[in-house]
Amino acid sequence: MIHAVIMAGGVGERFWPLSRSATPKQLLNIIGRETMIEQTVSRLKPMVDESRIWVVTTVAQAPAIRKLLPGIPVSHILREPIGRNTAPCIALAAYAIAREEPEAGMVVLPADHVISPKREFQRTIRAAARTAAELGSLITIGIKPTFPSTGYGYIKRGKKISETGGLTFSRVSRFVEKPDRKVARRFLKSDLYTWNSGMFIWSIPAIIKAIEEHLPELADALSPLLKVGIRRRQAFLDRVYPGLPKVSIDYGIMEKHSDVLVTAAAFNWDDVGSWEALEKYLNKDDDNNYARGELVGVDSDNCISFSTGPLVGLVGVSDLIVVASGDAVLVCPRDKAQDVKKLVQKLKAKKKYQELV
Amino acid sequence: MIHAVIMAGGVGERFWPLSRSATPKQLLNIIGRETMIEQTVSRLKPMVDESRIWVVTTVAQAPAIRKLLPGIPVSHILREPIGRNTAPCIALAAYAIAREEPEAGMVVLPADHVISPKREFQRTIRAAARTAAELGSLITIGIKPTFPSTGYGYIKRGKKISETGGLTFSRVSRFVEKPDRKVARRFLKSDLYTWNSGMFIWSIPAIIKAIEEHLPELADALSPLLKVGIRRRQAFLDRVYPGLPKVSIDYGIMEKHSDVLVTAAAFNWDDVGSWEALEKYLNKDDDNNYARGELVGVDSDNCISFSTGPLVGLVGVSDLIVVASGDAVLVCPRDKAQDVKKLVQKLKAKKKYQELV
Repeated sequence: MIHAVIMAGGVGERFWPLSRSATPKQLLNIIGRETMIEQTVSRLKPMVDESRIWVVTTVAQAPAIRKLLPGIPVSHILREPIGRNTAPCIALAAYAIAREEPEAGMVVLPADHVISPKREFQRTIRAAARTAAELGSLITIGIKPTFPSTGYGYIKRGKKISETGGLTFSRVSRFVEKPDRKVARRFLKSDLYTWNSGMFIWSIPAIIKAIEEHLPELADALSPLLKVGIRRRQAFLDRVYPGLPKVSIDYGIMEKHSDVLVTAAAFNWDDVGSWEALEKYLNKDDDNNYARGELVGVDSDNCISFSTGPLVGLVGVSDLIVVASGDAVLVCPRDKAQDVKKLVQKLKAKKKYQELV
Repeated sequence: MIHAVIMAGGVGERFWPLSRSATPKQLLNIIGRETMIEQTVSRLKPMVDESRIWVVTTVAQAPAIRKLLPGIPVSHILREPIGRNTAPCIALAAYAIAREEPEAGMVVLPADHVISPKREFQRTIRAAARTAAELGSLITIGIKPTFPSTGYGYIKRGKKISETGGLTFSRVSRFVEKPDRKVARRFLKSDLYTWNSGMFIWSIPAIIKAIEEHLPELADALSPLLKVGIRRRQAFLDRVYPGLPKVSIDYGIMEKHSDVLVTAAAFNWDDVGSWEALEKYLNKDDDNNYARGELVGVDSDNCISFSTGPLVGLVGVSDLIVVASGDAVLVCPRDKAQDVKKLVQKLKAKKKYQELV
């Protein structure tokens, strides 16, 4: 059977002040009525029963996630004592699943991506799961680029290995770091490159073997989870996590492993990386301002306004992001949306503002 | 004895969203701890006992003013049913005072000006009151210009008439509308011009005579106040006010009257006309941002931030005004501060936003 692991450890700094450390992007309903993690579960349900869904998250977010997803077994909400990047997160889930079902399939999905249509997503996951089960490969889902993004990593496909359910699975020829604009344009024209979405499918035996091979210290540290009972699990994690290597699954395993396949997904995908990315999900007014909540503008255009309560009044401004959320207000030009992180870092550094992040 | 009339009818559109129709600028503590109307009363008290202070205001503001100024007789809080500019406002007060003390002196002051030092203000008022009592003239307080303002009207002085308490009183040669920059520069260099501050001093007989002479229809409409009892006053005003001419005291009386004097006040004066004018009263941070309330900026400078609650976070912006007040947020470039009025007009025009203005 397939188990699904939802990675929900993101701290959501880029969506401050709406997102806070206890309520990052995946726990917000920035897009649509449901939170992004609920939408992630909804997309999975027809294929993976909630009893086989897992969430890896932080101690701070766990209570909110339990409330949002009451159908997921409490023992499947895995709490990382501290963030150690994606390889430990995935290894933790792999060993926890292996304890329940050693031969299971495993899908890994970020909690905060926007994907549509559902059916196409499900078709992709089913085909990939089937291929992973048959071949024992580690499979990564590539996304067909729709613009020359410099914000994503890319995957170059090599030799075609198999075809299932209308999808082609090819050997990964190379993982490419975020390119510059010129290279990104070249990738967009070529049909060899897809965006690295951070979605993976493999069998439990295959990923555990890969962890043992490429990150043996991680395997040593976390393999006791095969025997640690649920009650003792958190104490075990609290003890071992601080000593784990900080390493991504891409760098630690995927780029080193010999048997990695990629398929080009046909669904629409958006990781909604910043306030700037929200434009297409918001209502547009007559002046090309995009808003959630009340917005009234005078001589103002092309702004993004997001308010959980107060009316936002704009006078004579353009290309701004304005967010009003509870006890904080953010103002930032659209082309500086990535720098919201800097503000959050500055707030974190000052004791009197720590409750605001 | 001198009676003082505080004109508190301003609707405070320029300080939205802090100021609303029931709480315009004069009822806010934008500058200092006390509200501006309380500061106006404080400045008057050593010269004019509260029992001789009057406030002309709107029906909406009256309850707040009573609460703020419990020492002022309730019967001295005069409520205009609708705004009819300054001539009816002043005539209303003049007849109401005349009913109590027909030979009184009368000082007229806006409720929302910042003036310092108090002693210099008091010296000016005392000298002007003495001169008004002696000569029977209408006296207007001119302010020595400190910069070439294009936002104020100017008064050109003519022949010197008298000198009292170190102040010179001259015949007004001409009232000048708001000039352009070039003319304003010339006025600043000359010592003949002062800003028209909207502060006046005269005797009750002199102003009533002037009203009868220049605005006889106003005299006809409001002179019954000499006999109308306090209990029937509001009903009387409700009946006659809609028919009164909309005219300013400057245009309706001062510019037409033959015996008008001006003196150049030596105190500091600021009518704090917009958010932009608030800079000098706010705390400056290391990046030249000016704030009341919590402000944290990244790569942001020369902004004015005013918050009654939420933290304001600025990322990569300059020369902006950001105001967070209760159920509304304003964002506006500093050089567009006057246009906040336009936003308020737009809000007023839409039913669902009327509670926000």
